Amino acid sequence: MRETDVDTMEMMKSMPMGSMPMDMMAMQDCIQSLNACSMAATMCAGADMTEMDMAKCTAMCSNMADMADATMRMMMRPAGMDMEVMKAMLMACMTMGKACAAECRMHADMAEHCRYCAMACDDMVMKCEAMMAQVA
Amino acid sequence: MRETDVDTMEMMKSMPMGSMPMDMMAMQDCIQSLNACSMAATMCAGADMTEMDMAKCTAMCSNMADMADATMRMMMRPAGMDMEVMKAMLMACMTMGKACAAECRMHADMAEHCRYCAMACDDMVMKCEAMMAQVA
Amino acid sequence: MRETDVDTMEMMKSMPMGSMPMDMMAMQDCIQSLNACSMAATMCAGADMTEMDMAKCTAMCSNMADMADATMRMMMRPAGMDMEVMKAMLMACMTMGKACAAECRMHADMAEHCRYCAMACDDMVMKCEAMMAQVA
Amino acid sequence: MRETDVDTMEMMKSMPMGSMPMDMMAMQDCIQSLNACSMAATMCAGADMTEMDMAKCTAMCSNMADMADATMRMMMRPAGMDMEVMKAMLMACMTMGKACAAECRMHADMAEHCRYCAMACDDMVMKCEAMMAQVA
Repeated sequence: MRETDVDTMEMMKSMPMGSMPMDMMAMQDCIQSLNACSMAATMCAGADMTEMDMAKCTAMCSNMADMADATMRMMMRPAGMDMEVMKAMLMACMTMGKACAAECRMHADMAEHCRYCAMACDDMVMKCEAMMAQVA
Repeated sequence: MRETDVDTMEMMKSMPMGSMPMDMMAMQDCIQSLNACSMAATMCAGADMTEMDMAKCTAMCSNMADMADATMRMMMRPAGMDMEVMKAMLMACMTMGKACAAECRMHADMAEHCRYCAMACDDMVMKCEAMMAQVA
Repeated sequence: MRETDVDTMEMMKSMPMGSMPMDMMAMQDCIQSLNACSMAATMCAGADMTEMDMAKCTAMCSNMADMADATMRMMMRPAGMDMEVMKAMLMACMTMGKACAAECRMHADMAEHCRYCAMACDDMVMKCEAMMAQVA
Repeated sequence: MRETDVDTMEMMKSMPMGSMPMDMMAMQDCIQSLNACSMAATMCAGADMTEMDMAKCTAMCSNMADMADATMRMMMRPAGMDMEVMKAMLMACMTMGKACAAECRMHADMAEHCRYCAMACDDMVMKCEAMMAQVA
């Protein structure tokens, strides 16, 4: 599937993004990081469910996954791009990413999935910040 | 299904929300309005797809539905409630709601689904503002 | 929001469904029931997270909500309607609904949210069966 | 993000899947392919919206993305795994994948995004079939 992953980003280049006032490389990085974050958070919540005293982590990771998915999909619909909405959504997603990373990091020594999820959240926050710098 | 709708809100009362610094009535109103907005926007996008020159409306309504769903689900997970995240998400959802209503209102004379969708967005923005006043 | 709920179904009538070989009343009932089921299952999972020994219920309700959402959205996109896909999706959604109701019913005496969720799943299975009879 | 992608699958190994009667490699391949398919279909729908006479493709790709997401999330929640539900969902997802690939292939000469999306659907159907062989 490495090949298909590459294709997915290759595909991005064929999209009608030309008219958007945005750096395409920053947005592609952001989409990939949002996707990795969504998957890590979904898995982390799924693993948390089977463990004791992980209510907050389960709920935060579930919220993280839903928000990352919504943000990522928005970036894949060029016709609906609105800079005010994009900035507000990036802001919400980064706020969630920081809160989720902080929660997961508290369990990172005990749970490998929390360690990965915190890293994926950190990376996503960084990529959203880079994109924010482009749209501001 | 009227009965089940009522039950859904009845069910809300049995949830472990007690510890949250929030007005439960404001949040219930907000959840119901986000749900109606998500359904209206999904239908509006679905109808737009079959019409000419509705690219922007299709994409904005699709974004609106995804954001309303993510916001609503967050309200239904008390264990993960974080006031900073909630405020940022409400802000993003209201920004989207205003943009989507403005777009839909441009087609409200021609398309009944756009007229409904704009109304559902307006109502959602109003209910989110009321909830924002509670969490601020 | 009672009014907006009614509007949502009123809105349905304005959609370009005419060409579909389907009973519109059966599909509207199905959409409303899928929506109530999705909300009940999301709340049930959200409440389960805060309780002990509810891993299976949390995970099944989360799956139920995602499947009900996907099925409902499919019904709101008339241009993509494909009878083979619709039948397979209804079948999957009913199988999930039965499994989720069985799981929730095991906790119905202790947890009010599980009792509601089981009822919402039962209703959804019944409405999907009625719609299946129309598309078969 | 290449590194984080690898991590995501590395993370999978730390999940409490041990009790499931399933080949983990087949499921990991399936998850990655469902994810690539979901992203390709979301992008294809997003690009379709800006083009003429692509209503069916927009709607089918939107359905494909929602179904792939629901199926993938189900695989990431080990506590809720139910073989009957999994088989029904795999069946629905493969039926959708074949229908979506057939639709996209009709536009593959004109639209690069449709060519990629058809390939991603084909790969997903193949990986789901391989997994189905394991759970049957």
